[in-house]
Amino acid sequence: MKKIAVFTSGGDSPGMNACIRAVVRTAIYKGLEVYGIYHGYEGMIAGDIKRLYTYSVSNIVQRGGTMLKSARSEKFRTPEGRKKAFENLKAHGIEGLVAIGGDGTFTGAKIFHEEFGIPMVGCPGTIDNDIYGTDYTIGFDTAVNTALDAIDKIRDTAAAHDRIFFIEVMGRDAGFIAVESGIGSGAEFVMVPETKTDLDAVVKSLKNLRKTKTSSIIVVAEGDKEGGAAEIMTKVKSKINDKNKEFKVTTLGHIQRGGNPTARDRVLASRCGMAAVEGLIAGKSNCMAGIMNQEVVYTPFGDCIGKTKPLIPDHLKLIEYLSI
Amino acid sequence: MKKIAVFTSGGDSPGMNACIRAVVRTAIYKGLEVYGIYHGYEGMIAGDIKRLYTYSVSNIVQRGGTMLKSARSEKFRTPEGRKKAFENLKAHGIEGLVAIGGDGTFTGAKIFHEEFGIPMVGCPGTIDNDIYGTDYTIGFDTAVNTALDAIDKIRDTAAAHDRIFFIEVMGRDAGFIAVESGIGSGAEFVMVPETKTDLDAVVKSLKNLRKTKTSSIIVVAEGDKEGGAAEIMTKVKSKINDKNKEFKVTTLGHIQRGGNPTARDRVLASRCGMAAVEGLIAGKSNCMAGIMNQEVVYTPFGDCIGKTKPLIPDHLKLIEYLSI
Amino acid sequence: MKKIAVFTSGGDSPGMNACIRAVVRTAIYKGLEVYGIYHGYEGMIAGDIKRLYTYSVSNIVQRGGTMLKSARSEKFRTPEGRKKAFENLKAHGIEGLVAIGGDGTFTGAKIFHEEFGIPMVGCPGTIDNDIYGTDYTIGFDTAVNTALDAIDKIRDTAAAHDRIFFIEVMGRDAGFIAVESGIGSGAEFVMVPETKTDLDAVVKSLKNLRKTKTSSIIVVAEGDKEGGAAEIMTKVKSKINDKNKEFKVTTLGHIQRGGNPTARDRVLASRCGMAAVEGLIAGKSNCMAGIMNQEVVYTPFGDCIGKTKPLIPDHLKLIEYLSI
Amino acid sequence: MKKIAVFTSGGDSPGMNACIRAVVRTAIYKGLEVYGIYHGYEGMIAGDIKRLYTYSVSNIVQRGGTMLKSARSEKFRTPEGRKKAFENLKAHGIEGLVAIGGDGTFTGAKIFHEEFGIPMVGCPGTIDNDIYGTDYTIGFDTAVNTALDAIDKIRDTAAAHDRIFFIEVMGRDAGFIAVESGIGSGAEFVMVPETKTDLDAVVKSLKNLRKTKTSSIIVVAEGDKEGGAAEIMTKVKSKINDKNKEFKVTTLGHIQRGGNPTARDRVLASRCGMAAVEGLIAGKSNCMAGIMNQEVVYTPFGDCIGKTKPLIPDHLKLIEYLSI
Repeated sequence: MKKIAVFTSGGDSPGMNACIRAVVRTAIYKGLEVYGIYHGYEGMIAGDIKRLYTYSVSNIVQRGGTMLKSARSEKFRTPEGRKKAFENLKAHGIEGLVAIGGDGTFTGAKIFHEEFGIPMVGCPGTIDNDIYGTDYTIGFDTAVNTALDAIDKIRDTAAAHDRIFFIEVMGRDAGFIAVESGIGSGAEFVMVPETKTDLDAVVKSLKNLRKTKTSSIIVVAEGDKEGGAAEIMTKVKSKINDKNKEFKVTTLGHIQRGGNPTARDRVLASRCGMAAVEGLIAGKSNCMAGIMNQEVVYTPFGDCIGKTKPLIPDHLKLIEYLSI
Repeated sequence: MKKIAVFTSGGDSPGMNACIRAVVRTAIYKGLEVYGIYHGYEGMIAGDIKRLYTYSVSNIVQRGGTMLKSARSEKFRTPEGRKKAFENLKAHGIEGLVAIGGDGTFTGAKIFHEEFGIPMVGCPGTIDNDIYGTDYTIGFDTAVNTALDAIDKIRDTAAAHDRIFFIEVMGRDAGFIAVESGIGSGAEFVMVPETKTDLDAVVKSLKNLRKTKTSSIIVVAEGDKEGGAAEIMTKVKSKINDKNKEFKVTTLGHIQRGGNPTARDRVLASRCGMAAVEGLIAGKSNCMAGIMNQEVVYTPFGDCIGKTKPLIPDHLKLIEYLSI
Repeated sequence: MKKIAVFTSGGDSPGMNACIRAVVRTAIYKGLEVYGIYHGYEGMIAGDIKRLYTYSVSNIVQRGGTMLKSARSEKFRTPEGRKKAFENLKAHGIEGLVAIGGDGTFTGAKIFHEEFGIPMVGCPGTIDNDIYGTDYTIGFDTAVNTALDAIDKIRDTAAAHDRIFFIEVMGRDAGFIAVESGIGSGAEFVMVPETKTDLDAVVKSLKNLRKTKTSSIIVVAEGDKEGGAAEIMTKVKSKINDKNKEFKVTTLGHIQRGGNPTARDRVLASRCGMAAVEGLIAGKSNCMAGIMNQEVVYTPFGDCIGKTKPLIPDHLKLIEYLSI
Repeated sequence: MKKIAVFTSGGDSPGMNACIRAVVRTAIYKGLEVYGIYHGYEGMIAGDIKRLYTYSVSNIVQRGGTMLKSARSEKFRTPEGRKKAFENLKAHGIEGLVAIGGDGTFTGAKIFHEEFGIPMVGCPGTIDNDIYGTDYTIGFDTAVNTALDAIDKIRDTAAAHDRIFFIEVMGRDAGFIAVESGIGSGAEFVMVPETKTDLDAVVKSLKNLRKTKTSSIIVVAEGDKEGGAAEIMTKVKSKINDKNKEFKVTTLGHIQRGGNPTARDRVLASRCGMAAVEGLIAGKSNCMAGIMNQEVVYTPFGDCIGKTKPLIPDHLKLIEYLSI
């Protein structure tokens, strides 16, 4: 293998740049030529491909976003689109690919690999942490800290005014961001898609609120089955029906995707990027390089997207015990 | 004057604690006894009043929120409520008051002073900066930096995906937060209540977007006459009518009220607090202690709430010049 | 077991408060009475012991430092001191202890347990991450992020002036903080006690600097065998002997110990605290509750202080590969 | 005037990039061509000059450091050096200059202007705030907030261990950073070059420490006449001579120069940059564009470097009153 390319796809996440840098420099260190594909699969089809050098990735380890840009690609869902993409790679002599992204990215990568046989190794880049085959995904730690920082600020106001705040965090169908930011902020309740949300218990607890605590923070994962923060707040408010209690909703939104990555995300991203290149050189393909139990693990794309990563049971216990 | 009291009222803002600390310690330094009234005017009526000492305000200079809590008070709008409040103050022997808050706080203070003659000096505590008689209000600088930090994060994602973001910031009927966070973040447009929002100009500029820039940040003050960020986005989107452009909305919300105050807010809050106490001792009343042109200025409550503080004209020019 | 106590000892680390909170609330949740011992072993001897309630630990999960304070205790090194400490515990009816700290704390705990048989479980509270029996210690993640944030800032200046910076980070005899902040900041070299520092290689590389890069960051662990950052800089400078190269030294110092804990540290601290109490109830003693491979693990104090936790080999490889 | 150039010189400060961006875009908005001179006066002599466009300064408003780099220049102190510099400017057709920097930068600019008559307007870029003719300098607000954030972290440790910390901050011969970070952090003492440092008063106060407070923060400006933090600590320690008191020293160092600029610095930098270009166009020269009392003011270079900007007297009073 002499030439490889790297691209980012799907929603951006903090640490993608650190991962790109690790792919580029590891490849060059190992004597390969390396190319960047801009705008994900869309750019692969459009031929938006450029050679990268060690200095191309200088001073990006600390930046959010992705220097290779990202995009959704409808065309890549068609056989014609994928054929065009492959031809562009062949024209550049590219023999292997590193795909940085999540679920959708790996689904595309799996089909592409199966159709054209080009070696592909993935890196888990998503803030949602919902990828099987790695303890944490690149961007998750930053997103949790951003959410936590926001909740810390909101608690100042909640405490000053004795208010009840429903705060919606990201995470798609998974509750990882909600659980860790909920434990970290000392939230009174955390509502996640993985467990049944018992609104009656919340109502009962909030009715008794003034006796013990005067303010309350409820973290809601965007994928919760009972609805988003606004919907849940409305339900709870109508059941409590007490004019003296003030309810507020905040949806943290896109701030959770950006920002300088944390140390943990930079180290994780760097290590996954290095492992992806080492994997390609060692003949691995159709799999993702993740870190489990401090070791590099290569998991088939099929498992990454097909299997569900469970929440850590102790974390749910923590929320229950510590919010008394 | 031997005994004074301090309270916070209205929406909380970062730096209120630093202001409380300055009031308490300056009073004690000057040989006064000082009391804290909890929950604003509501607590004044309820008699929620406690003696404060130098150590009562230790380790709070850096905290958001307000240790004296804040609340809205319907009762204080009634003559009976205010009479009860005054009796509670008399019972404690309190001869002067420092009121930390905004518009509503000073409106109440003015009436209360006029009815009962108790000396009152205010400190401008609000993130909105919409108080005449001070260059900046306590909490404004922190709110702007919080908004800016959030917009910086969102720009990472906007740039990675070539998106157009409409970001709503706070400020009530004033555009100060929008203007300063807009200049600071290099926003392409800033929409504020003080100036007419020209949606057609925005539409025209965004239509040409891909030729020069690929992403765009539009900061919308919550009080803009054309609506909030979501409403404006919908209008703009329908006029542009281009499926290839991706529009997103984020409302920053309550994170702008909390958080550790910045250096500027701590210094401003400390200085206003000291000036309020020195003012009371010097016989001032029915006025607010603010800082204009680096000097302490006492402005009658009537002017603080009746006059409008204009935006700095150069700031509007900066947005126009620098977004090319 | 009906009554337990908790204390912090040794250098403080961010997350100790979150750990105290978890110990207190888990204990109460499980029906125990819980006490706080102030100033570590010194307070145990002085009888500085108070009952804690759920509200005693409200609003501390996000604070650095330790509400129970910490201190070194010469007296606890004497049999008389320890005897007095035990008598105080007995007087309060305390039947189990949670000790939050590092090396020195556990050494004391081991002796105390062996002499008096009182059940003791530890939680790993130190920024240095040098405790065997847990993947990470409480405070490490915050310290790394603080160091990283500082190095990011210094790189701005290094790049603006084409300078070579030697930055000293904490870590006692271990290089964990240096390695992770070095990878995260994209440092050109990282010098740690665990590996031989090859100054000649650094000199050779820096001599060639202007050809490829113009500035350089070298992270030095305080325990490096070649000396601290200042000493190493002097050695390197004299070997390079080039007036056109500007060398600077910064020692990050005590900022690394403080600050609001990161999400990771708050979650880790909470989980260790819960596990310590559950361990005591389950009859465990003379051991530390840590987290390895996402699971709670109880490791004998003897191993925690006697065995060395190695650096992750991939991390050293990352520094070599990615600094090209 | 058709062509102007911009450069940064002296120690870098956060906000310089925002200032460069404002100069470039204002110039282009006004129909001028604009060039960047790299490495300050050194690059002017070496002819390191490049055309800048609106996109050249995209995405830098939020970055610390300076994209134009900075350097000291011995050659510019010689008539030959300055002659060469002027010839390079003439060769490019450059008719006006914007110089971003401090004292040294303006001293050079004054001589250069007097020798060759080329119009020059300065912008105050230094963290020290020691420039007459502007209420604040670009970078000062960021430096104060960085120092404050560091002191907040150190207070966590100081409080946990009942320690006395001497913290040295930057500021050259001025005490602005020390005073504002001292007020903001609630420091017990602040030592600055502008006032006589009374070590005996400090000693007396610290001897009584345990009676009222248990920890203490003393902020020392690097230019204090009694010495740096380490020297002052040694003097104080020997006078107190109490083994039970723990003394620590931290020198914050270069972290104060870097980092993303605060909102205030970005707005100030943008406004000064715009004003410098507008000034050049209006025929101004040999002066600096600063902001006083919210208005743009042009002050002759001679005054900027020759007159001393005093500390705000109220600030010194605040430190005395609020540290009781």
